[in-house]
Amino acid sequence: MSWLEEELREQPAVLERLLRSQADTAREVASVFARDDVRYILIASRGSSSNAARYAQYLLGRAHRVPVMFATPSLYTIYEQPPRLEGAVVLGISQSGASPDVASVLAEARRQGRPTVALTNAPDSPLAREADSVLLLEAGDERAVAATKTYMNSLGAIAMLFAAVDGTVADAELHAMPDLLEQQIALSIESAPPLEEYAESVGATVVARGVNYGTAFEIALKIRELSGLVVEAYSPADLMHGPIAAIREGWPVFVVAPSGPARPSVEDLVLPLRERGARIIAVSDVAAVLRRAQTKLPLVPRVPEWLSPLTAVIPGQLTALRLAQQRGLDLDQPVGLAKVTLTR
Amino acid sequence: MSWLEEELREQPAVLERLLRSQADTAREVASVFARDDVRYILIASRGSSSNAARYAQYLLGRAHRVPVMFATPSLYTIYEQPPRLEGAVVLGISQSGASPDVASVLAEARRQGRPTVALTNAPDSPLAREADSVLLLEAGDERAVAATKTYMNSLGAIAMLFAAVDGTVADAELHAMPDLLEQQIALSIESAPPLEEYAESVGATVVARGVNYGTAFEIALKIRELSGLVVEAYSPADLMHGPIAAIREGWPVFVVAPSGPARPSVEDLVLPLRERGARIIAVSDVAAVLRRAQTKLPLVPRVPEWLSPLTAVIPGQLTALRLAQQRGLDLDQPVGLAKVTLTR
Repeated sequence: MSWLEEELREQPAVLERLLRSQADTAREVASVFARDDVRYILIASRGSSSNAARYAQYLLGRAHRVPVMFATPSLYTIYEQPPRLEGAVVLGISQSGASPDVASVLAEARRQGRPTVALTNAPDSPLAREADSVLLLEAGDERAVAATKTYMNSLGAIAMLFAAVDGTVADAELHAMPDLLEQQIALSIESAPPLEEYAESVGATVVARGVNYGTAFEIALKIRELSGLVVEAYSPADLMHGPIAAIREGWPVFVVAPSGPARPSVEDLVLPLRERGARIIAVSDVAAVLRRAQTKLPLVPRVPEWLSPLTAVIPGQLTALRLAQQRGLDLDQPVGLAKVTLTR
Repeated sequence: MSWLEEELREQPAVLERLLRSQADTAREVASVFARDDVRYILIASRGSSSNAARYAQYLLGRAHRVPVMFATPSLYTIYEQPPRLEGAVVLGISQSGASPDVASVLAEARRQGRPTVALTNAPDSPLAREADSVLLLEAGDERAVAATKTYMNSLGAIAMLFAAVDGTVADAELHAMPDLLEQQIALSIESAPPLEEYAESVGATVVARGVNYGTAFEIALKIRELSGLVVEAYSPADLMHGPIAAIREGWPVFVVAPSGPARPSVEDLVLPLRERGARIIAVSDVAAVLRRAQTKLPLVPRVPEWLSPLTAVIPGQLTALRLAQQRGLDLDQPVGLAKVTLTR
């Protein structure tokens, strides 16, 4: 078995470990975001961690009712004109903790006396050293270049920070997730649709909104890394403002639409997409959504919307894996990619 | 002549008009961002205006040394959990001023007693009505669906806000831009490279960083809207963190690299791109950069880096127009797009 598939299957167990071992740390870290002088949260990240950061943008925004923004590292590194960070808590997310641009944002925050938090899988990394508080991802060694279990535990860590504020119901919902991930992996494997019709596809588009906006980016990145297809992610609103022009006859569009407030806005897109001849691949627990799709990627039911990104990414990961196998590609070492990328 | 081409050629004149008629307003608006209680700037926008917003992220960030972030409209509209905006100035950018999601972010800021600013071409629009201060784009009627002159004047308006803080040198540099745009249009037309080799291309990637990060998104959007190609934009760092996997033999990559601090980081990408067999299309005033590209889109020299997005977008607009003509498409009314898109 490839490392990739092994690590994908480990996800319920590593999430379980994270929830068990980092519970106290999560409560401490959550209290940093709740400080009286906090006006906004600033996140630094790259790659898969940036997709997890989009989840944090929604969850931490809802938990603390403050805006959550992404750093523009070039203002720190290339232009050397970092902003004044009065009112900020700065959060760095990186499984390796090694990318200099992510660590440099935390270093600047620290110089300015602002609190810094790291979510990382590497306790001795440059990122961890710049952080006042470190929430360890506890994902174990990840050997495949494409992130699966470190992405899952980044989501899990963010969900812990939300539950620490939101209370006992949220905490119970989160603790049900390892079992639900197990069910989701089993469901996604047993209901895996045929993918022959996508053998000649050169790319795809993934659409989602709200808490699953980052899921769209992660599914796109996973397919892209593993099979080299040109896959992109959009919110429905952004797609409608021009980019839909490129959606043509036969182009595959993943529609990520779990039950919840964001679903209607994603579902509204199905009609204009079908009018353009797109092939719809639905990721949903809603029968009506799946029925309207050419390819169905069902989700297990009864996952609260705020936790649905944890299950919704799984059929995307498995589809990415299967599309790469279909093309005869190396799952663990995609051409030209490195596990740790150092950018400034 | 198409409206698109006519409007593209009007850009020097409409920028000149903007600089002349909105000078006082720009100084007033700039003073709002400089208020003592401002900790960060929050921008709401969609489509081309979001690409102009990326320019604002760099320029306003450098002028006021505060973080500049993008709103997540769904927290306001779908989840009805808007953040507390203490410390914010909220800026809405929309040529039509009509999109409900953009106006709703300003409405919420106003409810919370925070200052609101609109950049719009439509003084009677819902967006203008929600704003305490309105900087009019003065672009005149734009009839082509794809934005050209309203995009240019959005950049111009942002540059005015920067110059109002940065001082007289910046102001003089900005006032030289209408002439430089005229020269850029002439240069881009007379040096237009053959595009036959791209007749069968299905897509492209555009790469830039720093002040031109938004230029990459705007060139990508323009080609995409006009010719339906799958065109995407990345910063070099984000492309290296996985998405480069999709860049293969023959794939066109636009490298936007005007002189300035961001250039080396973009140029460093040329080697790994060429190793993957990409065809490089360089947008630059630097001979060494153009020499390494298969297709050369030269920029006029002596444009200060902070203003280079105004000239650098022009060869992109003209290439988008020519790729659409090559495909026999309607320049003013791309299939399935509307001039005003109403999203929530």
